Amino acid sequence: MTRRSISRRGFFAGVGLTGATAVITSCGSDSEAAGSMASDKNGTSPQADSAGLATEDTKIAFDGEHQAGIQTAPQTHALLVAYNVRKEQRSAKGLQRIMRIWTGDARNLAQGHTPLADLESELAMAPRNLTITVGWSPRLISDAKLSDKLPGWIENNRDGLPKFKGDQLTEDFSDGDLVLQICGDDLTAVSHAARVLTRGCRDFVTPKWSQRGFIDSPTGETPRNLLGFKDGTAIPRSKEEYDDAVWDELGGSAMVVRRVVYDMPEWEALDRSSREVVFGRSIETGAPLGGTEEFDEVDLNAVNEQGLPMIDPHSHVGLTAGEGTHMRRRAYNWDGEVTALGSTGLIFICFQDDPDTAFTPLQKRLAEGDRLNQWVTHVGSAVFWCPAGTPEGGYWGQDVLEG
Amino acid sequence: MTRRSISRRGFFAGVGLTGATAVITSCGSDSEAAGSMASDKNGTSPQADSAGLATEDTKIAFDGEHQAGIQTAPQTHALLVAYNVRKEQRSAKGLQRIMRIWTGDARNLAQGHTPLADLESELAMAPRNLTITVGWSPRLISDAKLSDKLPGWIENNRDGLPKFKGDQLTEDFSDGDLVLQICGDDLTAVSHAARVLTRGCRDFVTPKWSQRGFIDSPTGETPRNLLGFKDGTAIPRSKEEYDDAVWDELGGSAMVVRRVVYDMPEWEALDRSSREVVFGRSIETGAPLGGTEEFDEVDLNAVNEQGLPMIDPHSHVGLTAGEGTHMRRRAYNWDGEVTALGSTGLIFICFQDDPDTAFTPLQKRLAEGDRLNQWVTHVGSAVFWCPAGTPEGGYWGQDVLEG
Repeated sequence: MTRRSISRRGFFAGVGLTGATAVITSCGSDSEAAGSMASDKNGTSPQADSAGLATEDTKIAFDGEHQAGIQTAPQTHALLVAYNVRKEQRSAKGLQRIMRIWTGDARNLAQGHTPLADLESELAMAPRNLTITVGWSPRLISDAKLSDKLPGWIENNRDGLPKFKGDQLTEDFSDGDLVLQICGDDLTAVSHAARVLTRGCRDFVTPKWSQRGFIDSPTGETPRNLLGFKDGTAIPRSKEEYDDAVWDELGGSAMVVRRVVYDMPEWEALDRSSREVVFGRSIETGAPLGGTEEFDEVDLNAVNEQGLPMIDPHSHVGLTAGEGTHMRRRAYNWDGEVTALGSTGLIFICFQDDPDTAFTPLQKRLAEGDRLNQWVTHVGSAVFWCPAGTPEGGYWGQDVLEG
Repeated sequence: MTRRSISRRGFFAGVGLTGATAVITSCGSDSEAAGSMASDKNGTSPQADSAGLATEDTKIAFDGEHQAGIQTAPQTHALLVAYNVRKEQRSAKGLQRIMRIWTGDARNLAQGHTPLADLESELAMAPRNLTITVGWSPRLISDAKLSDKLPGWIENNRDGLPKFKGDQLTEDFSDGDLVLQICGDDLTAVSHAARVLTRGCRDFVTPKWSQRGFIDSPTGETPRNLLGFKDGTAIPRSKEEYDDAVWDELGGSAMVVRRVVYDMPEWEALDRSSREVVFGRSIETGAPLGGTEEFDEVDLNAVNEQGLPMIDPHSHVGLTAGEGTHMRRRAYNWDGEVTALGSTGLIFICFQDDPDTAFTPLQKRLAEGDRLNQWVTHVGSAVFWCPAGTPEGGYWGQDVLEG
């Protein structure tokens, strides 16, 4: 819960003095760690080979200090399912019931074991880096009278995140009482996990929305979004950065989900250099404009021969530089019905200790000034608190629910 | 175009005499070839490693005697897009225009090269076994006055396949003038290919429907459908079987696409042995009931101690035994919105020289008698003629369109 040492204000103020060094430290400079994820506390086996693909039946430990699926290197597929909890279960008791069932099933699924009452055990045998991460909404927490025990941002966001300029939110992809983030490299296992978990608590919860996403990283580099850019260059990588920015005092984390739609025809009308101005990075290398390599420091003071900034202050990078390590981005591409105009975008997912000081102020700034807004629209929004990880045999949120 | 040597009638009549041997020959007995696909004429590089995953940036040759994506070992992802062709392009001339553009783009995409006018070249760089296969509908062929040059089944199916008992077809997944089957192991490349191809002919064609499917074969075995069974055990594997059953006289093939919806809650209410009775195979091994291994011959005459047949004559296998090598099945799972009841099923895709003697009579028999019908419903149907493969620099259907 330590607040970031370099606020954006400080970043700008300090640049030119010690700022440049500070940026190197805070902005994903671990270029040597780019391809290989920093060691994952939840990982007992290699999560992905150098080609970004599981080559064996890899399993990610379910139990641990923190839930798997947050620090875990992003798998190829993500399926997010949000559920509404029935009225009679909106209590600590009810939540306990659901968490017990889900934890047992999720632990089995992640280890390739057959969940209770699952007759399709063969579909669960090859989890291939399956992780299942649960989150509770502020409203559900409030209804269950648990807010007092939990971080302050939860009560502040009881009705969801604040609305941002330009938001065109629909209920189809917003809110919900509980979320399951199911990620893995085997879509059959992901699909089966969603079915088992949904079926297992069908008397207590009803699916509200689901979103499917994918990323590909065939040669181990940062995956690309469907606008063509590398996405996820600046993220926390060290244990210190995770402790500082991602995990809260209870070992949990706040998960923000935003569904973003691209305006493909308008975007495609731009030439490549215009696209690079919008992002502030090179399409090919991912380097910040003015730099040469993806993990080069972002230098917002760099100017070209005419004395103009290399990185437009209103570009995406111009507005987000220095913030990358303050939240664990775990975004996925989505691609819907094939239409003439295209129906495609990003499921932005991020984890942080406190959205009131991480996602929300950053998104406010982006919503007001990001050049990219001309081509992207946020249509879904949800925020959840993810409890800490489980000890062996424990269940999600046990400390909070029994404490 | 040679008709199958063993008709179903012959199969039943002969069983007990020479029939058993005949079954071994015709029913996917190449168990040693189960994991490794028979050599693919379109493949210039390994398509998948033993884990069913590309471990390098593998490319499948675009040009060849037949189109890629038919005999090609099924990749992890499939995206089918059907298009309607605008009125003024419904001629040989119009079709020629579309095929020239698509062939050029598809050839580039499959090789990881940048298609003309594509500014997102990075998304095309790792095709990972990308194949793009085109099909023309009987109605379009008829409108373009090309029927005389093409196989007879096309004119017979001018209004689509016959309606089968129990069909609940919707326009959302049926018909269309042209289809692109885009398959690969990298969903980003698949998605980008669909965008490039749709955009490239947007003045001539409009997407009518699209369907996304997946299969996983992490340890190289036959993939499973979402009912839990191995799916695709009995398929043609040798060059002889392909020449006999899949390729027509022009080097083309008939592609049938059927969208099947599962009734998950009702299916899940069955115990495992009831499910096995319905399919006629073991869930765990895929062996025909009475056998011990997946590729064991199907013996419809085997009886248990009580003298009852091991394989119910109305099970899926009971009705399809001996037919496996008569069409190249290339089915994919689909999984939609996560709901309490589940929304999931199969995109059945098959290729054959003549649907009037392959898919249609078999489906008629299944529609009337398959026990599985209680849990599956066909909601989409389409049939297309896939032209032969291209010589270097040629375009799809060139012989037909210029001949």
